[in-house]
Amino acid sequence: MSDEKLGKVAGNGLISRRHLLKVGASGAGLALSAGALGADQGLSFQIPTWSRQPGPGATAYGARSPFADDLQRLAAQPNPTYPGGGSSRSPLQHLQGTITPNSLHFERHHAGVPNIDPSQHMLVINGLVRQPLAFRYEDLLKYQMVSRIHFLECSGNSGALLRGEIGGSAQSLHGLVSCAEWTGIPLSTLLDEAGVLPEAAWVAAVGADAASMGRSIPLTKALDDVMVALYQNGEAVRPGQGYPMRLFCPGWEGNVSVKWLTQIKVTQEPAQFRDETSKYTDTLQNRSSYQFTFPMGTKSLITSPSGEMTLNQPGIYQITGIAWSGRGSIRQVEVSADGGKTWAEAAIQGHQLDRALTRFTIPWEWNGGDAILQSRATDSRGSIQPTRSDVIASRGTLSFYHNPCIQSWQVGPAGEVRNVYV
Amino acid sequence: MSDEKLGKVAGNGLISRRHLLKVGASGAGLALSAGALGADQGLSFQIPTWSRQPGPGATAYGARSPFADDLQRLAAQPNPTYPGGGSSRSPLQHLQGTITPNSLHFERHHAGVPNIDPSQHMLVINGLVRQPLAFRYEDLLKYQMVSRIHFLECSGNSGALLRGEIGGSAQSLHGLVSCAEWTGIPLSTLLDEAGVLPEAAWVAAVGADAASMGRSIPLTKALDDVMVALYQNGEAVRPGQGYPMRLFCPGWEGNVSVKWLTQIKVTQEPAQFRDETSKYTDTLQNRSSYQFTFPMGTKSLITSPSGEMTLNQPGIYQITGIAWSGRGSIRQVEVSADGGKTWAEAAIQGHQLDRALTRFTIPWEWNGGDAILQSRATDSRGSIQPTRSDVIASRGTLSFYHNPCIQSWQVGPAGEVRNVYV
Repeated sequence: MSDEKLGKVAGNGLISRRHLLKVGASGAGLALSAGALGADQGLSFQIPTWSRQPGPGATAYGARSPFADDLQRLAAQPNPTYPGGGSSRSPLQHLQGTITPNSLHFERHHAGVPNIDPSQHMLVINGLVRQPLAFRYEDLLKYQMVSRIHFLECSGNSGALLRGEIGGSAQSLHGLVSCAEWTGIPLSTLLDEAGVLPEAAWVAAVGADAASMGRSIPLTKALDDVMVALYQNGEAVRPGQGYPMRLFCPGWEGNVSVKWLTQIKVTQEPAQFRDETSKYTDTLQNRSSYQFTFPMGTKSLITSPSGEMTLNQPGIYQITGIAWSGRGSIRQVEVSADGGKTWAEAAIQGHQLDRALTRFTIPWEWNGGDAILQSRATDSRGSIQPTRSDVIASRGTLSFYHNPCIQSWQVGPAGEVRNVYV
Repeated sequence: MSDEKLGKVAGNGLISRRHLLKVGASGAGLALSAGALGADQGLSFQIPTWSRQPGPGATAYGARSPFADDLQRLAAQPNPTYPGGGSSRSPLQHLQGTITPNSLHFERHHAGVPNIDPSQHMLVINGLVRQPLAFRYEDLLKYQMVSRIHFLECSGNSGALLRGEIGGSAQSLHGLVSCAEWTGIPLSTLLDEAGVLPEAAWVAAVGADAASMGRSIPLTKALDDVMVALYQNGEAVRPGQGYPMRLFCPGWEGNVSVKWLTQIKVTQEPAQFRDETSKYTDTLQNRSSYQFTFPMGTKSLITSPSGEMTLNQPGIYQITGIAWSGRGSIRQVEVSADGGKTWAEAAIQGHQLDRALTRFTIPWEWNGGDAILQSRATDSRGSIQPTRSDVIASRGTLSFYHNPCIQSWQVGPAGEVRNVYV
């Protein structure tokens, strides 16, 4: 079939996102003769066992199919010198849409997951307020709440790409990003109740885990869209996500969305907690560091085909992936199959919500030759995802956090897909 | 505090949705003296065990807190004469936001849940097509997909309210509605590939369960927004939802979103399957019936306070609930605390998406006296949720399916909440 007929829109096989796959071109349906249904294809249409007898009935709590229950997060191995420290990475290459199921949402802990009895947990608001207050979990359930679909990304996500050659999958390289519907109380409601004093400029949020995770957040953000989240995708936030309550700071690096939240202290200056001085800063080549670089960048990632997958044969594949921005919604995603020489606009597959994962897709014909697949996001403010070279040119090679760079997946002659730098 | 100061906006205690709760009025925060933190309230600020020692580290699959894992669906008792038949109802009164976690999404089965091996499952498209086709699961995964957040509601949901006096909770009376992000292939893509013949006007969808659930769908709908759904909230659709694939017909009664989908036959006339003649029709008082009444109505429900809950004491409560329409998005939800005499506009708590659950909330001061709480939704087309009397006046008392009527929760003198008809 000619390139024109297939609607080729960029180099090395990218096909218009509006292209419908037809029989004879690339439709995957197996043709049947109407007479002997399937006999000509060697297909068996015997009535399967499960259609012959009733299956088990209603259950109180649903589970996955035994044919699909091997989908897991990639959990860090225990480290005796850092008890409870580590992460669980989302299996991005096997997920679809934009919502992450709660059991597969990424986690990052600094002292493991505390098993908190909500009746013994308190949230205290103090510092530069007219009236210090303490809230019990059951008190907080009485407040008016807001619900928002937002991504959450660890600032260390994709950081390894700045450190040198590395193999891996979408999960192992980029699996510290997920997306959920978060429901909770605007922090501004609780701060208003305590009465913020005029000299206040920051809040210090502290968790009840054994790391006493503490982070400083500008008061402007705290009064804007930060919430005390009590629910994730409809149910109570889980222990790995901060049960019974966590802070949620939309668009900002995950670490400031302090889990197991137990204190908000209103202050004039940032608290300079351990985890905002020794970590979570961006060190430049001259050894000076940016601090409080909160918003996550404009970013995208092809999740299929992706690292450690293999394309079995030349033909048409659906490229799909996710895009997000810490400062707005996703306006556009472009895809290249020739390492960035030419680009085609991908289709957006669902909603384009503010600071939420957005799913894109575009068909691609792999001719069996070399290909380098990339995606490039543009957000609602016009901010364009940078290349890895751009990031290194502007920050050097010492920084680790906040890497939004374009991911390059090379497809080799045997169809093997791997991370490369171009 | 005066009604004016509290921002009363309708009878019997409804407060403006813009009202912020302040200390001294109704804030739930406990005042602390800055000096001896909490001592004056008898509060203990001993450092809890879970803050003293690291908890367990990263896991491959997340779970709920042991303090929150009793949240379950209400599963029908097994019925020996109807093996596998029954339903599991979502615990609406304990959920928040709009997304339902997959394990708590309602289910309704006619012959239980088949345990389908996807490698042995086929989707056949035949009938009035140029080329009958068969699709394996792995073939379908190659197609371009769409993602949409939509509610799903069983047409029998809330039907018991038309049959007479009944007690119950939001879950037992209305728990056959849930909401998820569904990802799949537009059915139009597969029908285009098979080539629909000019005389076609319906499709017949058949499931692979032992009930051979079959439903007829007009071709116009099938070519519009129906999808073959493979993913729910990011992960493979679960067995209780049709693994490995189900039909999804946005806005229409749940039963036509045929689970375990194995055949789409294109036809000129509806197939008149058992489950569209003996069931799922709306019988009028004169014993004639409406058939193929697919779209679900404009509807809302207060989930808290709701049936079988008890208000412990007079004071301010956050009324919250869900609203949805099978024909559009939700434009407005009004709430009454005096059985429909006066109404106030509720706040919308999150997104207002097309044919998706929408969360509303409004503060209410219960003075300890009688109250009847109601909510009333208006959708984007201007369609207004009817009262129970409206429904009975237009359809009589023989129908059971498609009841969108306003729910009335009576709050009794001891704070007990129950279903009543007004």
